[in-house]
Amino acid sequence: MESTVKFISKPRLKEPALIEGLPGMGYVGKLAAEHLAEELHAKKFAELYSPHFPHHVAIEPGGVLRLVKNDFYHASSNGKDIIIVVGDAQAVTPEGHHEVVEKILDVAEQFGVKQLFTLGGYATGRYSKTKPKVVGVFSSPELIEEYKKYDITIERGGGPIIGASGLLLGRGKLRGMSGLCLLGETHGMVVDHRSAKVVLEVLNNILGIKVDMTHLEHRAKETERMLERIRKEMELRARRERRREEEEAWYIG
Amino acid sequence: MESTVKFISKPRLKEPALIEGLPGMGYVGKLAAEHLAEELHAKKFAELYSPHFPHHVAIEPGGVLRLVKNDFYHASSNGKDIIIVVGDAQAVTPEGHHEVVEKILDVAEQFGVKQLFTLGGYATGRYSKTKPKVVGVFSSPELIEEYKKYDITIERGGGPIIGASGLLLGRGKLRGMSGLCLLGETHGMVVDHRSAKVVLEVLNNILGIKVDMTHLEHRAKETERMLERIRKEMELRARRERRREEEEAWYIG
Amino acid sequence: MESTVKFISKPRLKEPALIEGLPGMGYVGKLAAEHLAEELHAKKFAELYSPHFPHHVAIEPGGVLRLVKNDFYHASSNGKDIIIVVGDAQAVTPEGHHEVVEKILDVAEQFGVKQLFTLGGYATGRYSKTKPKVVGVFSSPELIEEYKKYDITIERGGGPIIGASGLLLGRGKLRGMSGLCLLGETHGMVVDHRSAKVVLEVLNNILGIKVDMTHLEHRAKETERMLERIRKEMELRARRERRREEEEAWYIG
Amino acid sequence: MESTVKFISKPRLKEPALIEGLPGMGYVGKLAAEHLAEELHAKKFAELYSPHFPHHVAIEPGGVLRLVKNDFYHASSNGKDIIIVVGDAQAVTPEGHHEVVEKILDVAEQFGVKQLFTLGGYATGRYSKTKPKVVGVFSSPELIEEYKKYDITIERGGGPIIGASGLLLGRGKLRGMSGLCLLGETHGMVVDHRSAKVVLEVLNNILGIKVDMTHLEHRAKETERMLERIRKEMELRARRERRREEEEAWYIG
Repeated sequence: MESTVKFISKPRLKEPALIEGLPGMGYVGKLAAEHLAEELHAKKFAELYSPHFPHHVAIEPGGVLRLVKNDFYHASSNGKDIIIVVGDAQAVTPEGHHEVVEKILDVAEQFGVKQLFTLGGYATGRYSKTKPKVVGVFSSPELIEEYKKYDITIERGGGPIIGASGLLLGRGKLRGMSGLCLLGETHGMVVDHRSAKVVLEVLNNILGIKVDMTHLEHRAKETERMLERIRKEMELRARRERRREEEEAWYIG
Repeated sequence: MESTVKFISKPRLKEPALIEGLPGMGYVGKLAAEHLAEELHAKKFAELYSPHFPHHVAIEPGGVLRLVKNDFYHASSNGKDIIIVVGDAQAVTPEGHHEVVEKILDVAEQFGVKQLFTLGGYATGRYSKTKPKVVGVFSSPELIEEYKKYDITIERGGGPIIGASGLLLGRGKLRGMSGLCLLGETHGMVVDHRSAKVVLEVLNNILGIKVDMTHLEHRAKETERMLERIRKEMELRARRERRREEEEAWYIG
Repeated sequence: MESTVKFISKPRLKEPALIEGLPGMGYVGKLAAEHLAEELHAKKFAELYSPHFPHHVAIEPGGVLRLVKNDFYHASSNGKDIIIVVGDAQAVTPEGHHEVVEKILDVAEQFGVKQLFTLGGYATGRYSKTKPKVVGVFSSPELIEEYKKYDITIERGGGPIIGASGLLLGRGKLRGMSGLCLLGETHGMVVDHRSAKVVLEVLNNILGIKVDMTHLEHRAKETERMLERIRKEMELRARRERRREEEEAWYIG
Repeated sequence: MESTVKFISKPRLKEPALIEGLPGMGYVGKLAAEHLAEELHAKKFAELYSPHFPHHVAIEPGGVLRLVKNDFYHASSNGKDIIIVVGDAQAVTPEGHHEVVEKILDVAEQFGVKQLFTLGGYATGRYSKTKPKVVGVFSSPELIEEYKKYDITIERGGGPIIGASGLLLGRGKLRGMSGLCLLGETHGMVVDHRSAKVVLEVLNNILGIKVDMTHLEHRAKETERMLERIRKEMELRARRERRREEEEAWYIG
């Protein structure tokens, strides 16, 4: 059984860039892409359903259910057409991930997409007081030159990118699409609007898009307060743990 | 390898409603749907076999085995035709769930089904002394108005519905079928005839069906006694656990 | 990717019975079927390869490897043709189990098989001093009458049968084949030649086959000694465990 | 969704031998095959992409990502054409393993491969001070005679070989290819250049290939130092563990 794309409309777009933000680390990519879609009053034109998504349905406020899915929106800003892919879930198996990504790329190809921007987070396991870094990962070396003027950290080496954000770029490259993955630094245990905000700022700079960030900034402040609380609790717990270990060491040793 | 539907007969039905009750939380849906099928002397007309069902066979009293399967029954009550789907199992993988649900919907479509009613339980982890609630989940907002006159709790928000009860409605909607999922409040660790009874009462009210509930009421009483026993045991265990923790705290602290 | 059957020859068989003994509980079925094949000088005529078998190769003495597979043998005894299915492994997923079983049934159908006999063990977790029981499970109620004259325990109810032994009968019935599953009582933690011997004795009685059991009897004696040792060790361990628990109870209480 | 092979060129090769070294125990096979490809200035001519590979992308130094893949190289030494298969990953499911191996064999067949050499490690869980052994596993008994003159240990019996190294030989044999698997003795917890070196030496002797081993020897020395450190740490830990057990025994007993 295959994933299927159901079209609501077939917009005419001029070489649109595709921006992806699906659930992942800290929900950074999803939050950023959803904010962008909202502020640009993007219009949904297709839905992707997959047997590789979890076998449950989401329940919306009011008790109405819907299938877990990925949505395609289109918008225009500054004369630039974009497609935004957001959604509830990613596939549950490696094979499912590969298949869903191919379906997204089929849509991208159909609308003449040449550029992919995928958004996500990378977990550090701690709360950084300073502005979160945005790490850029590129589908080919030439792009580094093009994008290094933006506020992007170019990581030398590093672990793999798991899920759609990486696979879209990897498989998109086989179809001749260039790609940039923007990963916001994030704690990893918290839905992180603060990191989403900095990721979106970088993306907007690149695409020359201007959107109101007020709502995201407001939520980012909440995230900061929550992270501050978690930091304190973890310190406390670590102190207790240390004390217990010392006592045990004394007891055994 | 695909799931297959084996027809025993092809009944002529007039826009039947489809009612699903497969094994799940507290066996609530299965018990309710089976009771309904039995009391209406419903007739089996098809069997669904799937490679996505567990790889074992069930053994019936007397030592006769049979493949794990889902069964389609038809019945008529008050001039209303219905199809009842019951069975031994649900699929074991997300992909399998999606496929089996599509096969059930293929049959539904073939017989002109426009309305889906799926039955299940939602676990609370505790025994409620009062009559269990029945939560309604809807395939579209218009239906809330239609069904809110029945004894249904309309949950604002809440977790996902896992398995066939949710997927049937979600995927059925893509085929133009309206759907209502009735979830009976249940402990979660016990086969719950009591919850099945209240779920079936709501369904019968909606469909204008009258069936003898004596057998289910009798079993519901047994369930209550069992739950009362479990409640007491858990209290006892919790008390013991608390005492042990206090002692350890004294020892370590 | 599908399982494939590679034929070595296409023997002409007269309505053969198919006997299956693949690895499972206590290796009872495999040992019984292999002994039968050996003593009847059965001839291999086909091999089944499957992507659903484990992704390793077996290494034979001498350092020669081979793919994990299932083998089809044919033999004749007392004018009765039989096909024997033995092998290294069963599938690793539920879907794989269903597919491999269908492939075996394709071969069975091709050679006109009407009767299936599947052999296996059922674990009791303990060593019985008396002769192990052989439980019979039937593909339809009529067969009980036919087979109850043999030394078979007809279980009233009981847990499911996992794997090929059950699925072959369940899916074979859909193709009009009758089936009997013979399960030998076994400890569960030990390769059990003793149980294999009693299972094979019942099968031979049913089919009117006479084979030399000396080798299996010899190995059965070894199994008995091993089980006796395990029984003693477990008693010892249980006693120690009890003592430790009493001491802790004293300490905490 | 199937694995796909993307050709960069179609070299003309004369009955090449195929050498495989993918990630596995101690990375022995991968290290040996990569060293060989490098020293022979082998040229990449095809890439294998698979939905059965892990759903992540690798990030190369400099922040450029690429899909996880297997690569086909060709080279020539001493008039002998060879194909070398190296890569980032093996499949993540048994079914995936079988499929990827079939794709590799499709390429092999297309270029007229008759001989397969697969390289890997077998874990012993300890550091051997003497030169690691190289165990040979053969696709058929005739080959033992042919290869026993080389410095190969011919294991009598032993556990299965997991993954591509075994499956390639097992499935290759069904296509009429002969095969030798060379497994270097390795600790199992360490990337082992030392074992890779001895495996490659045996392979080179067999194929009559001469390559500079300096780089591998240098890294092998590092491996030895690392293993020596691990050995010491484990001894220390074992001593501590023993002491703790003695104390507990004293306390409980």
